[in-house]
Amino acid sequence: MTNHLDFAMIGEAALRIQHDVVRTPTIRYRLHEDLELFLKAENLQPIGAFKIRGAFNMMRTLPKDCPGVVAHSSGNHAQAVALAAKSLGIHASIVMPSNAPPLKKRRTEAAGANVITVGPDSEERKKLADKLANDEGLIPIPPYDHPLVAAGQGTAALELYEDAPELDSFYAPVSGGGLMAGCATVLQQVSPKTKLVGVEPEAANDTYLSFAKGDRVSVPPPQTIADGLRVRIPGEFTWPILKSSLDGVELVSDDEMLWTMGWACSHLRIVLEPSGAASLAAAMRDGNGRVGVLLSGGNVESEMLRLAISRFEKEV
Amino acid sequence: MTNHLDFAMIGEAALRIQHDVVRTPTIRYRLHEDLELFLKAENLQPIGAFKIRGAFNMMRTLPKDCPGVVAHSSGNHAQAVALAAKSLGIHASIVMPSNAPPLKKRRTEAAGANVITVGPDSEERKKLADKLANDEGLIPIPPYDHPLVAAGQGTAALELYEDAPELDSFYAPVSGGGLMAGCATVLQQVSPKTKLVGVEPEAANDTYLSFAKGDRVSVPPPQTIADGLRVRIPGEFTWPILKSSLDGVELVSDDEMLWTMGWACSHLRIVLEPSGAASLAAAMRDGNGRVGVLLSGGNVESEMLRLAISRFEKEV
Repeated sequence: MTNHLDFAMIGEAALRIQHDVVRTPTIRYRLHEDLELFLKAENLQPIGAFKIRGAFNMMRTLPKDCPGVVAHSSGNHAQAVALAAKSLGIHASIVMPSNAPPLKKRRTEAAGANVITVGPDSEERKKLADKLANDEGLIPIPPYDHPLVAAGQGTAALELYEDAPELDSFYAPVSGGGLMAGCATVLQQVSPKTKLVGVEPEAANDTYLSFAKGDRVSVPPPQTIADGLRVRIPGEFTWPILKSSLDGVELVSDDEMLWTMGWACSHLRIVLEPSGAASLAAAMRDGNGRVGVLLSGGNVESEMLRLAISRFEKEV
Repeated sequence: MTNHLDFAMIGEAALRIQHDVVRTPTIRYRLHEDLELFLKAENLQPIGAFKIRGAFNMMRTLPKDCPGVVAHSSGNHAQAVALAAKSLGIHASIVMPSNAPPLKKRRTEAAGANVITVGPDSEERKKLADKLANDEGLIPIPPYDHPLVAAGQGTAALELYEDAPELDSFYAPVSGGGLMAGCATVLQQVSPKTKLVGVEPEAANDTYLSFAKGDRVSVPPPQTIADGLRVRIPGEFTWPILKSSLDGVELVSDDEMLWTMGWACSHLRIVLEPSGAASLAAAMRDGNGRVGVLLSGGNVESEMLRLAISRFEKEV
């Protein structure tokens, strides 16, 4: 396996997964005279998140006699690997943190995966997944730090570009960096003038700090409602790609994500999870011109969604 | 104006409004082994409802020196006419009932229309709109009972057919019947084996009763949360089309619509209004095989949406 990502690999990924994923719509919304949003609605994927792209892209390259796969994830990658495993007819063991939304855990189990729960820290689940790989010969499907996973995620930007060329900027959430690494690789190739902006929760600002320092920085276990963005350090593989391609990293508060979720229900008629609203919150606050936004997912607990609707309503 | 609707008129409409409306996605969802849903998500139109299709199709045929338009509507048609008028640079007066959702009223006003509020009965607003047409020379844009309006709405079925041919059945909500008249005209032509099912709230069962009797039946002002489906009698123009094309009319309760709205938030990650969930509720309950469903709209008050999320949560 090459430790490298380029545009051709993302083109290959698009062909490889074309029957596994949905070509999600790009929702166009003119917020005001100076800001036209082009929203790539990955919450409309079958599992409600973009993670299905990377999981299928990597798992479709596995040998037919593969004994199964193992993954660690706070939720959406877990569901993606479980669904891909079911679809390809292989075993999947998934290590999930105790603070993952129960909804995501239930759905991972419902897809037929063997779910193992550990503590909330992202390093802890990584260790157990490595152990299962060694002990049982399962093939690890990393949530972000792998060229095939990042290449799969990048196919979302390829589709967005088809729908909305000549973007002034592009906003995507950054956790481990797989999504942004893939999308940046696409956009640098086809639309080099587009400014690339990573978005993180204020409390999970590891990429923000790393970008400021020019080197990977680790943060304590982040307290944020964005359960999909709680990774503590940029990926080893993804970081150099992000470092060389991003124009900036912006931070959003939990309250901004919550408000934006409510706004999306009312104005876009779509459901976003907090992580899925992060990029939109930043783009609505700071974006200018033709702005592409990756809406990463929509798997949210009922209580959190009701809270978001109430939060937005206060200001209507 | 011919008092007639045929397939060619819908093809013309599709060309006429192609730059005014969004080609909404068809969301695919396998509910169980015997039921695959193909959901035409008209809640993702800019005004959050299919009504934009008929409004633009009729208003694009108006003479350039037209003094303005007048419409009566409980909400979504009002927003559609207001938006089309703004886009075409003409005046719009809109008569809305006192029980229309405040959200729909606010948005109609925000689009620049002159909104006049009357009592809740659909006949009352029709009369005032007729008066304004006579007194001020405004051109009436009927919410459903006109060939150009019905032809515009039918373009949704044309797009659904492109995405999902060979449907076993097609479910759409019926209020005045414009949407179903247009869609039925398309599907009878391109997919004659598809069974056509109209859906009404239990309390607004005028088309259900008319279909049973073989002639138009009027009902008292209906009490239902589906504010878009409170019409009391099938349209004069639309009824003969519905009578000759429908295979059946099914009824859904307010509770079924509410539950289905919550289900759609959780499983499709989209927001539906009660009227928009009616067809889905019936299809999930009674559908079989490859089933097309017209999701008519997603303009819902915050309180109603929170209620729907709670209603669905109870059974998870």
